[in-house]
Amino acid sequence: MEAARLHEYTDDMSEGLTIDEVDRPAATGPDDVIVEVEGAGWCQTDNHIIEGMWAEYVPQELPLTLGHENAGTVVETGDNVDLVSPGDPVICHPVQTCGTCRPCRLGETMYCENDAFNGLTTDGGFAEYLHTSERSVIPLPSGVEPIDIAPHADAGITAYHAAKKAVADLNPGDHAVVIGVGGLGHIGLQCLDAMSAARVTAVDLKDSALNLADGYGADHLINPSEDDVAAEIESITDGTGAAQVLDFVGEDVTTSYAPEITAAGGDHHVIGYGGHVHEPSQALVNGEFSFVGNIVGRYAELQELVALVEQGDVDLHTSRYDLGEINAVAEKLEHREIDGRAVITP
Amino acid sequence: MEAARLHEYTDDMSEGLTIDEVDRPAATGPDDVIVEVEGAGWCQTDNHIIEGMWAEYVPQELPLTLGHENAGTVVETGDNVDLVSPGDPVICHPVQTCGTCRPCRLGETMYCENDAFNGLTTDGGFAEYLHTSERSVIPLPSGVEPIDIAPHADAGITAYHAAKKAVADLNPGDHAVVIGVGGLGHIGLQCLDAMSAARVTAVDLKDSALNLADGYGADHLINPSEDDVAAEIESITDGTGAAQVLDFVGEDVTTSYAPEITAAGGDHHVIGYGGHVHEPSQALVNGEFSFVGNIVGRYAELQELVALVEQGDVDLHTSRYDLGEINAVAEKLEHREIDGRAVITP
Amino acid sequence: MEAARLHEYTDDMSEGLTIDEVDRPAATGPDDVIVEVEGAGWCQTDNHIIEGMWAEYVPQELPLTLGHENAGTVVETGDNVDLVSPGDPVICHPVQTCGTCRPCRLGETMYCENDAFNGLTTDGGFAEYLHTSERSVIPLPSGVEPIDIAPHADAGITAYHAAKKAVADLNPGDHAVVIGVGGLGHIGLQCLDAMSAARVTAVDLKDSALNLADGYGADHLINPSEDDVAAEIESITDGTGAAQVLDFVGEDVTTSYAPEITAAGGDHHVIGYGGHVHEPSQALVNGEFSFVGNIVGRYAELQELVALVEQGDVDLHTSRYDLGEINAVAEKLEHREIDGRAVITP
Amino acid sequence: MEAARLHEYTDDMSEGLTIDEVDRPAATGPDDVIVEVEGAGWCQTDNHIIEGMWAEYVPQELPLTLGHENAGTVVETGDNVDLVSPGDPVICHPVQTCGTCRPCRLGETMYCENDAFNGLTTDGGFAEYLHTSERSVIPLPSGVEPIDIAPHADAGITAYHAAKKAVADLNPGDHAVVIGVGGLGHIGLQCLDAMSAARVTAVDLKDSALNLADGYGADHLINPSEDDVAAEIESITDGTGAAQVLDFVGEDVTTSYAPEITAAGGDHHVIGYGGHVHEPSQALVNGEFSFVGNIVGRYAELQELVALVEQGDVDLHTSRYDLGEINAVAEKLEHREIDGRAVITP
Repeated sequence: MEAARLHEYTDDMSEGLTIDEVDRPAATGPDDVIVEVEGAGWCQTDNHIIEGMWAEYVPQELPLTLGHENAGTVVETGDNVDLVSPGDPVICHPVQTCGTCRPCRLGETMYCENDAFNGLTTDGGFAEYLHTSERSVIPLPSGVEPIDIAPHADAGITAYHAAKKAVADLNPGDHAVVIGVGGLGHIGLQCLDAMSAARVTAVDLKDSALNLADGYGADHLINPSEDDVAAEIESITDGTGAAQVLDFVGEDVTTSYAPEITAAGGDHHVIGYGGHVHEPSQALVNGEFSFVGNIVGRYAELQELVALVEQGDVDLHTSRYDLGEINAVAEKLEHREIDGRAVITP
Repeated sequence: MEAARLHEYTDDMSEGLTIDEVDRPAATGPDDVIVEVEGAGWCQTDNHIIEGMWAEYVPQELPLTLGHENAGTVVETGDNVDLVSPGDPVICHPVQTCGTCRPCRLGETMYCENDAFNGLTTDGGFAEYLHTSERSVIPLPSGVEPIDIAPHADAGITAYHAAKKAVADLNPGDHAVVIGVGGLGHIGLQCLDAMSAARVTAVDLKDSALNLADGYGADHLINPSEDDVAAEIESITDGTGAAQVLDFVGEDVTTSYAPEITAAGGDHHVIGYGGHVHEPSQALVNGEFSFVGNIVGRYAELQELVALVEQGDVDLHTSRYDLGEINAVAEKLEHREIDGRAVITP
Repeated sequence: MEAARLHEYTDDMSEGLTIDEVDRPAATGPDDVIVEVEGAGWCQTDNHIIEGMWAEYVPQELPLTLGHENAGTVVETGDNVDLVSPGDPVICHPVQTCGTCRPCRLGETMYCENDAFNGLTTDGGFAEYLHTSERSVIPLPSGVEPIDIAPHADAGITAYHAAKKAVADLNPGDHAVVIGVGGLGHIGLQCLDAMSAARVTAVDLKDSALNLADGYGADHLINPSEDDVAAEIESITDGTGAAQVLDFVGEDVTTSYAPEITAAGGDHHVIGYGGHVHEPSQALVNGEFSFVGNIVGRYAELQELVALVEQGDVDLHTSRYDLGEINAVAEKLEHREIDGRAVITP
Repeated sequence: MEAARLHEYTDDMSEGLTIDEVDRPAATGPDDVIVEVEGAGWCQTDNHIIEGMWAEYVPQELPLTLGHENAGTVVETGDNVDLVSPGDPVICHPVQTCGTCRPCRLGETMYCENDAFNGLTTDGGFAEYLHTSERSVIPLPSGVEPIDIAPHADAGITAYHAAKKAVADLNPGDHAVVIGVGGLGHIGLQCLDAMSAARVTAVDLKDSALNLADGYGADHLINPSEDDVAAEIESITDGTGAAQVLDFVGEDVTTSYAPEITAAGGDHHVIGYGGHVHEPSQALVNGEFSFVGNIVGRYAELQELVALVEQGDVDLHTSRYDLGEINAVAEKLEHREIDGRAVITP
């Protein structure tokens, strides 16, 4: 079968991946599930992987088939698999977990001590077939198409995961801020809207993104190229600041908003990860705010997000590309020319 | 009466404060409480105030009587005061709160929108008498002496506040790390021991501090001048890291431990505040850990700490000094020559 | 001024209260606030008070002016009052609290150890003027009229309080059940809708109430006179049961649904209180469900509810009556002839 | 092999079980684990099972080998098992779970939709060998013997589970009450002591049990045959009541304490299950207390309890019996003649 593989780290996105002919995976273990991929979202993290930015954080062996936002149809299952059968449409959580380590027992599947991460530490879904396991697939409700939901497997649950943590501390009358209304941010915004009654301010440099935010329920819009973010938030919140800030950018400039825009006791969630957090310890003490790290959401959270999608609470903008166009997609994203989420259709 | 006042910011601790003769305060408002100060703890923050390090964070008007860790005996009360009467021994929460803003309504008295902070934004307790209010005093149970408990008014509740947040996420079998077993750290350690069944590792450069930690229930001791902190924690925790880290130092070197010693989903509590937090956003994302800011604890938390003291769960090492020795105390602390907590006895 | 007062407990609602001429209250204490009442909601609890049903639970001295759901305009304030000034429109939390007991410090104002409850333990708002205090009034945002919001002072925050507790345990895909879509239930339903993405089933014997529920976002409707509640919930939830049940009726028949309709680990919130909870201990053990008591919400929760009302998230159906019609209102409610919430306009 | 089996429900404990010769189980599935049983605790629930009291709550097929508190040594494992190897000492969580249903994904293994419960719905450990699975065994740390820890598999985690829920709401200065210091209660008491700084009152009809409680850290002791429980708790708590009550008895008389001894907002945990909960809904509303159901703890909680045992925080009193004495043990327990927990050693 065809698979888009990374052979060498590079900053040149035009030749990041190669379409190779590789063996089609088979269900050899009792819990294995083989999925025919119908949609595989392209993520900013794919660019980062190609650049080698994850090599120091996780074990990687090249060549590697990328692609961690996958959905498709089950074609083969191991002997012990009960949850799905061939023919079932599924979305694939990117992390394959063991089910027996303590984090798995606690439901914190993202911290599995024996995990494999599709397209990051094991072969992913920019290919005709994906090898995964029973513990990592979620059957889709009728009416939800694999190709439409694929990007939720990572972009979606990452945004949902952060939004869910934020919602736990948002009361009616409180304020939330969403920084960056892109591939993740526009999902996070919809999750906040569906799951809380807080007022939400969207911050983005692109007016088109702010228009999108307006349509998804944002109460206030700020373009930092035109207005001072801290001054605007102070005015909007009557000086108390925002109880929860979701930073989908994570650049130095956005994390530096924290001391000024976060309410006492509030959280600045770090979801995007281009830059640094850098503040005097005293700033965190004085304002009692936190920089909260956020990773991909858990398996159970992907179930919850699928429920939101089924109910029509979360919408996803996608554009579709063939497997052969994959490097062009990487370049377009680098130049911010992708409208919505790019989905590869192998 | 005599009061030790700051007239000018300076880095020279030998002449930081001046003993002035000032008017004795009186209970003019209905909720006022006047306390004859019997003990007033000297805190690292007093050094920082003298240096001017808080001038950019809070409004300060000089001259100012310092002293935010006060306890003594009520001598006068306003007409509306029911909680205490003249003659009652009390500990004074450092923050005088309004009781009617939303944070006060929520019990989050540290975020009071109309607060005054003893010795920081209003006159404190390095004086014979302190002017405070009914909402800021806690009657002492019999058997607890003001002079023995005074430092708990700030050092104590700050450590308690952070420990209480940590305890909420510590299960039996989990690991906690206490960095810095000084004035606050030795209290935090005892709070962890009383309120959780987690295993605790103490980290300090001084062997005497580690000995103290050993006596207060620490399971493991690390001296960073002899051993590699990250390697030791990895070994102690079988590679999972510490679920909760309480950093009572807050220097660059201690906050930089976070990515290596904090478990996935864990917290690095910033309580001390000498340096910075500085990490790539990606580190917070990859390890899903948080830098959690910590301010002084709430009024209700001081009640809880008084209960711990009454039960004998939290011990406090103090040494006593006259008001006239106050600059000498400041210098000694600067040179780390104070054993336990210095208490001024006006 | 005129006040509707209870002189003797009785089951005859036609002569429950008497319109007496009494002294107009004055602001004698520093924290006092006098409100000219514009709207005072009539509540099922008023009928219960008249019947003497609260006499064994709280101290009551007759004659007593009833009325605990009050809103109006401030006309006089004590010397220490900063929050409001004469002329300000306010809603009055029914509980006057001390602000200095431990529950008040924790923000749990409903457990105040020195409280007075309007119309239950002290004179209430079925009168031209109400004597209350700074700690019990909330200024209304512009655009919100006292007469329109008055019933939220009790019906509203009681429903909000229970809904907020339920929301904390409701994930997308989870199910909630609202039993009784009356004066409280229709508010609770809207709160669930605004603050969660759970699916909600409404249960009521009246089709008109179910129609109302349908308009307020209920996903499923059950009329127990036509369908078996347990069987319907089992079908709707695919056999898992409802994570959270809000029982605004509290009769024997409704509390008895708990073992059959509540999901493992779920809660049956008891808000209405006509009957009993009665189950074998083994049922609670086997299903690990809880009967959760619910009282009126806190001051801070009324602030949050006012925010919901201001945002247009919670709607209130009211009908207006003169003070002289008050016994007629009591009778109508007894016979379930009140459409929406009756508001007395003194 | 020999197994003690139930053939017919009966109230006559002297002939409840029969020692049968049955086939030794084998590891036929990939996740199977066969354990040679070294200790199997006898539980009050075993008496209830023999009486048929669980037949209406769970599916049971007779004959059935009883025994749900098992520990021993692994003798055989399926092909996919990584967690343990033959020769490893283990404690067996009584519930065998699927690992793929939503409750398992959330870590709420007690609500597994495809579970089997040792000795309740599938054959248990009153036999030489037990058939269980990888997801249900926990390797024992060195120094912990199977025979000493066996009863923790049910009695222990049930008590731990309830104590952990209670601890989440217990601050220093708060009060907890433990009703019934028997097989579960004496463990719950030690858990409260290890994991919180609350003051604990123990209630039991037997002075020997109260003496035991005294040794395990109880601050106050009440014998209801001598003192009025409600009056004593009121006095001990200065009238506020106990924030958390752990009722290990669950009889009508003990659940009826709730309205009088539980603090506002507090919980009466129902763990024992001989009788009923029965109160007017109004009592729950007025005191805002809850009746909280408690089932056996989760797998991850058994890990936590093993950590407590390893640390020496929780002690267990046991007495040992041969498999042939099993009906005598049932009778002794019926007559309250068992001292500590009876452990069968097949």
